[in-house]
Amino acid sequence: MFNCGKIAIIGGGSWATAIAKIVVGHTHHIGWYMRRDDRIEDFKRLGHNPAYLMSARFNVDEIFFSSDINKIVQNYDTLVFVTPSPYLKNHLKKLKTRISDKFIITAIKGIVPDENLVCSEYFHQVYDVPYENLACIGGPSHAEEVALERLSYLTVGCSDTDKARAFANDCLASEYIKTKTSSDVIGIEYSSVLKNVYAIAAGICGGLKYGDNFQAVLMSNAVQEMHRFLTAVHPIDRSMYDSVYLGDLLVTGYSNFSRNRTFGTMIGKGYSVKSAQIEMEMIAEGFFGTKCMKEINRHMHVNMPILDAVYNILYERISPQIEIKLLTDSFR
Amino acid sequence: MFNCGKIAIIGGGSWATAIAKIVVGHTHHIGWYMRRDDRIEDFKRLGHNPAYLMSARFNVDEIFFSSDINKIVQNYDTLVFVTPSPYLKNHLKKLKTRISDKFIITAIKGIVPDENLVCSEYFHQVYDVPYENLACIGGPSHAEEVALERLSYLTVGCSDTDKARAFANDCLASEYIKTKTSSDVIGIEYSSVLKNVYAIAAGICGGLKYGDNFQAVLMSNAVQEMHRFLTAVHPIDRSMYDSVYLGDLLVTGYSNFSRNRTFGTMIGKGYSVKSAQIEMEMIAEGFFGTKCMKEINRHMHVNMPILDAVYNILYERISPQIEIKLLTDSFR
Repeated sequence: MFNCGKIAIIGGGSWATAIAKIVVGHTHHIGWYMRRDDRIEDFKRLGHNPAYLMSARFNVDEIFFSSDINKIVQNYDTLVFVTPSPYLKNHLKKLKTRISDKFIITAIKGIVPDENLVCSEYFHQVYDVPYENLACIGGPSHAEEVALERLSYLTVGCSDTDKARAFANDCLASEYIKTKTSSDVIGIEYSSVLKNVYAIAAGICGGLKYGDNFQAVLMSNAVQEMHRFLTAVHPIDRSMYDSVYLGDLLVTGYSNFSRNRTFGTMIGKGYSVKSAQIEMEMIAEGFFGTKCMKEINRHMHVNMPILDAVYNILYERISPQIEIKLLTDSFR
Repeated sequence: MFNCGKIAIIGGGSWATAIAKIVVGHTHHIGWYMRRDDRIEDFKRLGHNPAYLMSARFNVDEIFFSSDINKIVQNYDTLVFVTPSPYLKNHLKKLKTRISDKFIITAIKGIVPDENLVCSEYFHQVYDVPYENLACIGGPSHAEEVALERLSYLTVGCSDTDKARAFANDCLASEYIKTKTSSDVIGIEYSSVLKNVYAIAAGICGGLKYGDNFQAVLMSNAVQEMHRFLTAVHPIDRSMYDSVYLGDLLVTGYSNFSRNRTFGTMIGKGYSVKSAQIEMEMIAEGFFGTKCMKEINRHMHVNMPILDAVYNILYERISPQIEIKLLTDSFR
């Protein structure tokens, strides 16, 4: 049986905090890289993340914090990356040690900008991490509900089933977390990017006063569009009904916790992209994801009308009314 | 090209009223059977259904009302049945004329009790209506949103594609209704029954304080369960991602307009079945659907843990806490 060894979390946002809470409940020790020293100090003083998911309480004696990513990487075996995707490259640039022998788990729901690679591909191509050392965490799971210990289901993807199972069983599964494993790392990563794009679409349509009947059609078409893309990019036999694909799409598309959906709602109501971003104070991953996916699909040529519509609204300043009207004509 | 001829609506509830509004917008004349004369009188006086969907206004000069089903059946070519399924048999018992040469469209989302048949099978077996004269209407469509003219997508199922297309194009399609056709009458009928069962399940889980993460897993498992049943009962090549299956499930499972979901929520919060029914004043179709589907599946032996759980809660008085806890263990 594979042993995950010492586990560290890289990143200080709400999903990072939720995963830290789950993991430390098992291991009673984690390393935790956060960029800002002041945040670390506040965390230690308060016993919770000062900025995100404040209801999740920690025993800080169980955590080795550092704002030096090298200190963390040197001392830990399994590294769970949970930074916003736009910042991943900057964090990794500071590395002075190899990471190719580490077990790298990405819980980042985004594409590495400019490279236009999902994170596992980026670690593989740029940092020589072999595929069997690369895993991802997916599934329908708002961090806020994990903090409240509401029952959630997570899927660990890894080409090495033993490693997926080791992390799922030994570090995640609990009273309120049920786990499964998958070998479809790339499919899970792409679907977790696309669902954010579709959640923005759902928000835009809601903001434009389209109703529940239409939202259901939008989600049905979204899962079909996701299926077409995944089949093109990584043609394996997968069931889109699995909760890691469909469930993750639904929780993001339908939930009020979703930043991406909220961002879309503001756009649909007439906010500019800039003012919606300022108002929200948090990054809506799907904003970047939309651009990356559009660029990736320039070479793939998959029929993706929802992605195209969101891209045109966010980046080409085409009116949401017009784009969504065109989209409704493409649906069946 | 098939011509639907003169069209009549059988039934006076909210979905009947929504369909009447859509159809009369095309044909400028419909027949309309309602059981109660006082309702008909009030309708004529007020220009809207006095009891349901009151925001939908009608020109009553375009409607021939009757509380005598035979008067309607004799004078109309296409009969759209939209009664609650428990009452269908009683309405039909009053028939003194054959209906086997009529174009029968069922928009009933339920099973004929005791017989345990979907409506199209019942019309075929008991009233000798040939399959090519039997159609159904499905799709994600709360009547309330149709009344508000919010964009909705309907699917007309009929083994005779010409007839499906004729009704879809000539009687339904409009500015706010998009249509498609299908040959999967039985699949659409069963899925429209099952989605009510799953909406009750969603409500129960919400009432028990399970969160959005879990609801997404529930819906993902529901579409899988639906797929297993449809494959067993009518094994044709169908895509469950189509809005008539998945979309209809989602709109009912996620929407606050859904009576079935509301009924489930009350059960989850601890109301008895009886008191939830009294409180709601409307029939939750899924309550009957649960029993019928359970009986049908006694012979089919499909693995349907969600149906079983809802049945046990509603009919065997097993505590929702216990049943749903067991259900969560069966999910992946």
